[in-house]
Amino acid sequence: MVLPVDSQRPSSWLSKEGPEYDVVISSRARFARNLSNYPFYDKNPDDKKKKLRNEIFSVLKEEEITAGWNFLSLGELSTSERQLLAERRLASDELISELESGVVFSEGEYTSVMVNEEDHLRLQSISSGFDIDRAYDAATKLERTLNDRFQFAYDSRWGYLSACPTNLGTGFRASVLLHLPGLVLQQKINKILKAISNLGLTVRGFYGEGSETKGFYFQLSNQVTLGQSAEKFKASLERVVKQVITQERKAREELINSAGIELEDRIGRSYGILKHARKINTREALQLLSLCRLGVDRGLVPHVDIKRLDGLLQLLQPGHLQCSVGEELSEKQRDFYRAEKVGKEFSGAPP
Amino acid sequence: MVLPVDSQRPSSWLSKEGPEYDVVISSRARFARNLSNYPFYDKNPDDKKKKLRNEIFSVLKEEEITAGWNFLSLGELSTSERQLLAERRLASDELISELESGVVFSEGEYTSVMVNEEDHLRLQSISSGFDIDRAYDAATKLERTLNDRFQFAYDSRWGYLSACPTNLGTGFRASVLLHLPGLVLQQKINKILKAISNLGLTVRGFYGEGSETKGFYFQLSNQVTLGQSAEKFKASLERVVKQVITQERKAREELINSAGIELEDRIGRSYGILKHARKINTREALQLLSLCRLGVDRGLVPHVDIKRLDGLLQLLQPGHLQCSVGEELSEKQRDFYRAEKVGKEFSGAPP
Repeated sequence: MVLPVDSQRPSSWLSKEGPEYDVVISSRARFARNLSNYPFYDKNPDDKKKKLRNEIFSVLKEEEITAGWNFLSLGELSTSERQLLAERRLASDELISELESGVVFSEGEYTSVMVNEEDHLRLQSISSGFDIDRAYDAATKLERTLNDRFQFAYDSRWGYLSACPTNLGTGFRASVLLHLPGLVLQQKINKILKAISNLGLTVRGFYGEGSETKGFYFQLSNQVTLGQSAEKFKASLERVVKQVITQERKAREELINSAGIELEDRIGRSYGILKHARKINTREALQLLSLCRLGVDRGLVPHVDIKRLDGLLQLLQPGHLQCSVGEELSEKQRDFYRAEKVGKEFSGAPP
Repeated sequence: MVLPVDSQRPSSWLSKEGPEYDVVISSRARFARNLSNYPFYDKNPDDKKKKLRNEIFSVLKEEEITAGWNFLSLGELSTSERQLLAERRLASDELISELESGVVFSEGEYTSVMVNEEDHLRLQSISSGFDIDRAYDAATKLERTLNDRFQFAYDSRWGYLSACPTNLGTGFRASVLLHLPGLVLQQKINKILKAISNLGLTVRGFYGEGSETKGFYFQLSNQVTLGQSAEKFKASLERVVKQVITQERKAREELINSAGIELEDRIGRSYGILKHARKINTREALQLLSLCRLGVDRGLVPHVDIKRLDGLLQLLQPGHLQCSVGEELSEKQRDFYRAEKVGKEFSGAPP
C-alpha cells in the first residue's frame, strides 16, 4: 500500500497561517465515541476489532462528507509509516501499536477518525492557529453523521460512555497548541500554568515534557468532559487562551526590551547552527527551531517563514525522516538526515 | 599623533599566503642587542631610556634601509593603541607598559625594532608562512646596519650580552607560528610537543595557553641562544618544523577519515555560530576560527579565504576593536563589536 501522505510536506493545518498564529500553532476538537454493540476496546477480541473497523470504514465510505478521504488499516503499514501518522497527529501512540486499528482522514489532514483506540472511535478535527470553532464545527459534523448511522454507547444520566472515566459525558476535548517562549524565558510560565490548572484546564509540554529544553510548546485542553456541554467547555478554553495570548505577547515585548543583545545572540546562534550543523538530534532541533520562531516573530530572523519552521516540527521527526529516505535509519543516520533537511529548508534563506 | 596602522586591516605578513601556509601561519627571526654605553634596561633611569630611544630613532632615520618606516614613542599613544601594537606583534606586553619605549617598523610590518624592551633593542622580522630564511635575512640586514652604527655589548667569550641569560650569545631566536588542529584533535599533540622539547626547542600555545579551547595555535622556537651560530639554530628549527608539517597533514587526513561527519558537524556549527552570533568573546572566537580554518583547508567551508580567517586573529582582539570603534569599550561592548566584525567578514561568504 502506498501511503497517501507526503513525508516531505507537513499537514495542511500546520502549513497555513491561522488566527493569532504568532502564539497559537493549531486548535483541535475531538469526540470519544463507542459503539453499543461491541465490548469496550480493551475487552474486544481481535476478530471483533477487525469487524468493527471494517464496519466503520464501509459506513464512512458511503457518506458524502468523506468523499476523497483516505482509509488506512494500520496493520498494513510499516513501523516508520505508523510513526509518521502519529507525528502528524493522525494517530495516537496507542493507536499505532494496535494492529487492528484504522485511520480515516480528509485531504489536508484537517479531520480524521481513529478506529480502535482506547475508545472505538476518536473523531477529531484540527485547524490552523487559534480557531477552535472551525475544528469544533468539523468534528461535530462528523460526529452527527456517525451518530445517525451507529448506536453509540450512551447513558441518560452520564451521557456518552467511555473506556476511561475522564472521557465520560460529552467525550469532548478541545485543545490548542501554543508557542510560549516569552513566558518561559521571562520565567513567568510556572505561575501561568498554575493559574490555568486552577481553571479546570490541563497543560502539558508538547513535543516533549514541557521543560525549556524541548522548545516552549504547550498544549492546553479541558480537564473534564462531564457536567456541561461541549460548547461550554470550548468557550471556557477560548477565554483562557485569549488571556494567555495577551500575556505571551506582553512577555515577548518585555523580553526584547530587557534581554536585547543576549536574546538576539541566542536566536542568531540557533539559526546559524540549524543552517550549518551536519547532525542534530530531535531535542536540539526543536529547541533551536523554537528560538528561531521567536526570532522570526520579532523580526530578528529575516526572510524565514514562520510556517515553514512549524512544518519542520513534523518533517524532522524520526518517522518522517525514515519515510523520506525510504528505509529504517539508526539514530546516528537520522541525526544526519535531520541536519540535511533543515539545511535544505533554510537554503533559500539569506546567510 | 595618528597611528600609522589601520586597525581594520591585519599586518601584511598575516594577510599573505606564504610557503606551507596550510600549517604555518608565520615565521619570525629576532636579535636581542644592548648598547655598551648604557646600563641594561632595568638599571637604566628614565631620562637615559628616553635619550637612548632618541638616539636609536635618529640614527635609524638616517639609514637607507628604514626609508618609509614608522617611528612611534609609546608614551604618546593611548592604551588601546599600545595594545593594538602588541596584538600585531610590533610590541611585546613588556614594551607597552614602558612609557619611554619606542617602536620602529617597516611598511607591511614585516621588520621592526623595539626600543627599551627587556633589552635595549629587539630587532625582528616576520614573514608569511614557513619562510624563516626571509625573516632571518631581513633581521640580519637590520642587525648589521645597527652594528655598524652602535657599539653593542659584546664579550669575546660569551658573545652578545643580554639582560637575561636566556638571550646570551647570539641573542637570536627563530620561531614559527603553527596551526595544529589535526594533531590536537587526533590527540597526538602531547607526544609531539614532548619530542620537540627534547630537541632543544620551546613550544608554547599562542593566542592563549595551548589548551584546545584556545584554538590549536602553537609557537615553536629555539630554547637557547648560546653555543652555536644563529644559522645553526635556524637550521635545526627548520628541520623540526618540516617534520611537524608532515605529521600535521597526516593527522588531518586521518581525522577526516575517522571522524567524518562529527568533524564536519563541529566545523559547520563553528561557521554558523561565527556568522550569526551577536556577541562573542575572544576565546570562543579563536576556537571557532581555528575549526573553520581546518574546514577551509579540508574543503568543508567553501568560499572562505584562509588568510582572511588568519587576519581575524588580529582584528578581533580588544585593542583592534577599540581602535576601530574609536573609544575604550567594556568587555560586553567588545563582545558585541567582535561578533559584528566576524559577521561582516563572513557576509560575502555563502549561507
